Amino acid sequence: MSYFRSDIEAMEGYTPGYQPKGSGWVKLNTNENPYPPSPRVLKALRKAVSEDLRKYPGPMADAFREAAADVLGTSPDCILCGNGSDDLLNMAVRAFCEQGAPVAFPYPTYSLYVTLAQIQGARAVRVEFPQDYRLPPELAGTGAPLTILCNPNAPSGTMVCPEEVARLAENLDGVLIVDEAYAEFASANCLDLHRRMDNVIVMRTMSKSYSLAGLRFGYALASRALIRGLAKVKDSYNVDALAIAGATAAIRDQLYLQDNVERIRATRRHMRAALQDLGFECLPSETNFVLARPPEPFAAEALFQELFNRRILVRYFDEPRLDEWLRITVGSEKEVEALLNTLKEIIAAARTGDA
Amino acid sequence: MSYFRSDIEAMEGYTPGYQPKGSGWVKLNTNENPYPPSPRVLKALRKAVSEDLRKYPGPMADAFREAAADVLGTSPDCILCGNGSDDLLNMAVRAFCEQGAPVAFPYPTYSLYVTLAQIQGARAVRVEFPQDYRLPPELAGTGAPLTILCNPNAPSGTMVCPEEVARLAENLDGVLIVDEAYAEFASANCLDLHRRMDNVIVMRTMSKSYSLAGLRFGYALASRALIRGLAKVKDSYNVDALAIAGATAAIRDQLYLQDNVERIRATRRHMRAALQDLGFECLPSETNFVLARPPEPFAAEALFQELFNRRILVRYFDEPRLDEWLRITVGSEKEVEALLNTLKEIIAAARTGDA
Repeated sequence: MSYFRSDIEAMEGYTPGYQPKGSGWVKLNTNENPYPPSPRVLKALRKAVSEDLRKYPGPMADAFREAAADVLGTSPDCILCGNGSDDLLNMAVRAFCEQGAPVAFPYPTYSLYVTLAQIQGARAVRVEFPQDYRLPPELAGTGAPLTILCNPNAPSGTMVCPEEVARLAENLDGVLIVDEAYAEFASANCLDLHRRMDNVIVMRTMSKSYSLAGLRFGYALASRALIRGLAKVKDSYNVDALAIAGATAAIRDQLYLQDNVERIRATRRHMRAALQDLGFECLPSETNFVLARPPEPFAAEALFQELFNRRILVRYFDEPRLDEWLRITVGSEKEVEALLNTLKEIIAAARTGDA
Repeated sequence: MSYFRSDIEAMEGYTPGYQPKGSGWVKLNTNENPYPPSPRVLKALRKAVSEDLRKYPGPMADAFREAAADVLGTSPDCILCGNGSDDLLNMAVRAFCEQGAPVAFPYPTYSLYVTLAQIQGARAVRVEFPQDYRLPPELAGTGAPLTILCNPNAPSGTMVCPEEVARLAENLDGVLIVDEAYAEFASANCLDLHRRMDNVIVMRTMSKSYSLAGLRFGYALASRALIRGLAKVKDSYNVDALAIAGATAAIRDQLYLQDNVERIRATRRHMRAALQDLGFECLPSETNFVLARPPEPFAAEALFQELFNRRILVRYFDEPRLDEWLRITVGSEKEVEALLNTLKEIIAAARTGDA
């Protein structure tokens, strides 16, 4: 006999990317930023490590909301902070979807959306992306109270342009989340939609572009009414005092962010071109990773394993549409060189074996 | 038209205790510990403020689980970490209660339980405590898949002995959470029950006795099967790298904890006796606060306001069973003296006014 709800009993749970123990790994599997956070963030964090930790944090993280409103040109009332943007996605599924209600999103995308639907006992409605990852028109017609669009999308790295996203939002009866976890690496974003559409929530995270995956901080931008409702669902003190201090310093340091992002974009261009030279098919990327299909005769899973054996971690997804591809994080210049050199060796060895 | 679920639309949301702006307040309203966290915690946190924050934290916070298992005499597999114990309570309501299912708990108690039931669309079943706050026998007969017992209880400060809690667990068909947020201040606890009963979850927090409310860290102790199921419901990276580092150092420093707790207990004895001398009725307290009823002719709400006007914050609950009482946190010796002196003044002034 189980004490758990049957939905929970039946589900698997989300599998986070593999975190290796020990050193010497080239870790290109979880889209972490290869560069450190801004020195100003580390300084603010050191300052916040104090006796004041005995006190509860501000329940709405107002220090961050004010700084972010200033930087992004919005009102603090239109911002809600989360313990990572996963926390905000979770709140939204809870706030908008009854048990049994549909949650719609394109496929393939961030696999957490399915997990969140399962936990809620909601029904995940996957609308397949076409091969070129343009917006599938059927997404506007599901009738779901909540639609989630990861944009730029993971794990494809592709992006739907803001005009099309706006059109999607107009055609929906329910709420649209634009999960912009990777937006800072992209050539455009949908930030503006939260100001002009009452059913759009734009979500951002500090994990990728701000190099703060360890700090757990995300934020949502939406109309005051949506923020007010979502706030009812959040844990009373969902972000801790250190995360608030670090995230506030991070969003204020836009120069550091731009430098960091520019470096990643330059490496991305180089990595993608070099992979293509090696015969990989690469989707265009607006993120800090590239989805790449190995050249014949290499199977993605076997190549993942060969790289793993040489202590290079990339991400392989054993599921439809993805099982011929590898998702490779844009690491530092040095890490990407190590990856490319190892791939060259593996390919050369295979050709020698053939001959 | 609302985009929200009707349950969410209808609910109010949890109201955290008032956090004043500016200095000069004697803050005895949110059960924060008046003493700083262990110096070892602050040292560990400073060390953890590093470039490594660019990486995701361990998803299960294994460093903490191993340290806590060692200190508490259990297995790491029997521990689950949460972003505060509120996060763990939330997971449990989601994991065990379908929409419409009952969640049972005595009343009055921690008001978050009602909020969590509302968010889940579950049905809060309140079983009233008798006047002396002994365990109400009806609690065993609700048929709820989840029963929550705050023990020691907030806001009464009273405790049910472990033998009675064990008997309750035996008589339940569902799961029993023993929310031990204040257990370190008490003369006994139910830690042992997680080892011998497969339906008991004991929850602890670092917010009160470890002086780390700002860090957001709690943990649950239960059978491996319950921990495994709850873990499916948790956010992938629910506790951040700094919280893990701080909490691990905190649980290892049991000497500091004992000193801190002893000081609070001594002040509690003094404060309670002094309040009684002033004519207050005080419930026995196994926590870091005292529930006290002001003497005639003082109404609790008016006295709360008088104290507030003099920048002393205590907690007043405008609800049945509580509206004649004030919940007063055991602050530092100095803060408690300030409270007692102010109360003496107010009482003396009223008597002069009478004369």
